Amino acid sequence: MNEPLCKRLAAEVVGSAFLLATIVGTSIMGAKLAAGAPAMALFVTSTSAGAMLTVLIWLFGPVSGAHLNPVVSLAFSANGQLAWRDVLPYGLAQLAGFAIGLWSAHAMFELPVLQVAVTARTGAGHWLAEAIATFGLILVILGCVARRPSVVPAAVGLYIAAAYWFTASTAFANPAMTLVRALTATPAGILPQHVFGFAAAEIAGAVLAILAGRYFWPAPR
Amino acid sequence: MNEPLCKRLAAEVVGSAFLLATIVGTSIMGAKLAAGAPAMALFVTSTSAGAMLTVLIWLFGPVSGAHLNPVVSLAFSANGQLAWRDVLPYGLAQLAGFAIGLWSAHAMFELPVLQVAVTARTGAGHWLAEAIATFGLILVILGCVARRPSVVPAAVGLYIAAAYWFTASTAFANPAMTLVRALTATPAGILPQHVFGFAAAEIAGAVLAILAGRYFWPAPR
Amino acid sequence: MNEPLCKRLAAEVVGSAFLLATIVGTSIMGAKLAAGAPAMALFVTSTSAGAMLTVLIWLFGPVSGAHLNPVVSLAFSANGQLAWRDVLPYGLAQLAGFAIGLWSAHAMFELPVLQVAVTARTGAGHWLAEAIATFGLILVILGCVARRPSVVPAAVGLYIAAAYWFTASTAFANPAMTLVRALTATPAGILPQHVFGFAAAEIAGAVLAILAGRYFWPAPR
Amino acid sequence: MNEPLCKRLAAEVVGSAFLLATIVGTSIMGAKLAAGAPAMALFVTSTSAGAMLTVLIWLFGPVSGAHLNPVVSLAFSANGQLAWRDVLPYGLAQLAGFAIGLWSAHAMFELPVLQVAVTARTGAGHWLAEAIATFGLILVILGCVARRPSVVPAAVGLYIAAAYWFTASTAFANPAMTLVRALTATPAGILPQHVFGFAAAEIAGAVLAILAGRYFWPAPR
Repeated sequence: MNEPLCKRLAAEVVGSAFLLATIVGTSIMGAKLAAGAPAMALFVTSTSAGAMLTVLIWLFGPVSGAHLNPVVSLAFSANGQLAWRDVLPYGLAQLAGFAIGLWSAHAMFELPVLQVAVTARTGAGHWLAEAIATFGLILVILGCVARRPSVVPAAVGLYIAAAYWFTASTAFANPAMTLVRALTATPAGILPQHVFGFAAAEIAGAVLAILAGRYFWPAPR
Repeated sequence: MNEPLCKRLAAEVVGSAFLLATIVGTSIMGAKLAAGAPAMALFVTSTSAGAMLTVLIWLFGPVSGAHLNPVVSLAFSANGQLAWRDVLPYGLAQLAGFAIGLWSAHAMFELPVLQVAVTARTGAGHWLAEAIATFGLILVILGCVARRPSVVPAAVGLYIAAAYWFTASTAFANPAMTLVRALTATPAGILPQHVFGFAAAEIAGAVLAILAGRYFWPAPR
Repeated sequence: MNEPLCKRLAAEVVGSAFLLATIVGTSIMGAKLAAGAPAMALFVTSTSAGAMLTVLIWLFGPVSGAHLNPVVSLAFSANGQLAWRDVLPYGLAQLAGFAIGLWSAHAMFELPVLQVAVTARTGAGHWLAEAIATFGLILVILGCVARRPSVVPAAVGLYIAAAYWFTASTAFANPAMTLVRALTATPAGILPQHVFGFAAAEIAGAVLAILAGRYFWPAPR
Repeated sequence: MNEPLCKRLAAEVVGSAFLLATIVGTSIMGAKLAAGAPAMALFVTSTSAGAMLTVLIWLFGPVSGAHLNPVVSLAFSANGQLAWRDVLPYGLAQLAGFAIGLWSAHAMFELPVLQVAVTARTGAGHWLAEAIATFGLILVILGCVARRPSVVPAAVGLYIAAAYWFTASTAFANPAMTLVRALTATPAGILPQHVFGFAAAEIAGAVLAILAGRYFWPAPR
């Protein structure tokens, strides 16, 4: 990871694009092929998203760290593994990548590229779920990076595949992706006015995980 | 695993909480999205539970061993890998974690936090199934710890995902978790009066596995 | 694998028992929960069987080789990795284990222990499928043992999970297990009079794979 | 991979045959068992294809590289990892293997061996999807070969399993296989007149990935 910043940002863009193209594209395909079977539609989304995450972290981990998530970048900065001045560029690259991925998914399925979400996702249960989902995600990353770095890609993929199901909110766990998912009317979307609650809960969960990580793994290797 | 006891117990609490939150949360989501398709509901629970178990053992294995199950702690003590005086604190930490996880799942789905189970799970077939499921779980752990320690997390996750299906009882295989699952009216529950039969069968299976493990792997490395 | 023969045979018995208990138990559970959705029922059987196979080879591979299949024992003997005089005891241990596993599955689900199969499985398509399935299985084992021994458990599990679906016969690929599956009236069974055709096709596929393996990997390491 | 060309071509033939037999066989079995549940039928195909790809790359990677795809052979040649003069023989071996696999699948299911496809697959969305799917596939291969060669088999399998779902075209991502899939009237087929558009999009995606790979991993190890 001694790559120049521009190459690291390019990796974050391409990785984020593939990640959200997978989530949105699969949710379109799932809704089409599994009409009336919402569990099947969510299952294909959860397994595809988990599989793609694992692949992308294998692929871009050695280039940029494959954060694909601003709270992951934040956690690495808090741990001294990413320069603080790189957090904002990483976040912007992730936003750009998510937008490219979302619009690519719309284009592949010949839907209007520009859309606005119609799915309500709000309430205390959903916020608690996002906080727990993000707490777990960041804890898994920090702990495995500290003690078993070779399993990070598989651990993140399996965690997210499971988190889709045990949280009431399907585990967005990513404030930048949450924001961009306001731009799709497919089942992967979230009403724009509900983005703030999700993002705040996700950030709270991430901060708690950073604190817990310092207790469990005080000197990450 | 030379961590102080308090940190090891904290790992058992957090790990146990995530494990039961996954099982209960997924069973709620599965019942909601797969109404009328019980195989799909059980399949998402079995795969999510297996995936989360693997992740949690990767994460907390280097801290506490990630037992998440009193009969696992018992088996390690019988093998000299955990001090006998730590078995009870581990068991209490697991109980506390399971309660936190179960109540968190209820809260995420905006259900009453305090519930009592309504699902009957009893009879000779179920007891035989719990004994076999726990026998296999402990044997897998002892054998892989002895000969292929790096695969233990994946082996436990895959074993449990399969055991959900081949046992008539969906493989609780964990007396502390069985007890706490009397506190949920979701499909993951077990009637309080049926807990004792399950727990006794699980302990019997574990004891047999400890004996079989001594035959197969007499000097664990 | 310098274990005494009696311990190796015990490993083959226990491993074979868990393998067939998984296949038969899951097919009973699948038929019960996925009535009217045969693809779902077969999917849970294929994934559970594949997962359990991987676990069992991790567990018993260092003890007995975890053949769990007489044509696997035959292939290892042909390659000089198992004494010829051990092939028959291995086969008998596998038969005994399969019988124990099948009857255990019946008992767990409170079905009559002694049954006779009712499912017809015959014809040129099925025989071709069994020959191809077994050819692939033995080739995967010989090639991975020769060049990438650490992936054998995962490779066998993934291969069998896929082979359930691409063969017309759901890939028994195991003459001893085929014989014992004549003793169950669950969906996992095969009519006694159809066992011979399956077993002959499996042995033919295995012999071809041994020859192909000698071409591809002449000096296994 | 210092094997003689004839052995490498034999590996490409056998590997390609098993890959397409899996895709076509599973799509026949899926259509039969999951009539009216197209998501389930596609899910078993995507998971079986991904699992078999991983197994085949483990098995034949050390022999021929297990390209099983002419644009993969092209990418390795562009990177200096395959002699240019071997690209055409590899492509012909892949075509031959795909034909053998497709006809074997028909024979196993007792369908007419010679068929012509009936499924229309065309339009800008599908072409964009094939370009993106192939871009991602080649990028994953080049990046993992450069930095984490041991995960290539799992990465390709997981990528393809996910790509089935997030692309509108179910990710053929392979011009030779696309051509041969014009010879099946099963759900895996593609109308002969639609082959050219798919193949052109796949080649375009592959060329872009080769260029992107040079930027991200300039000196592959």
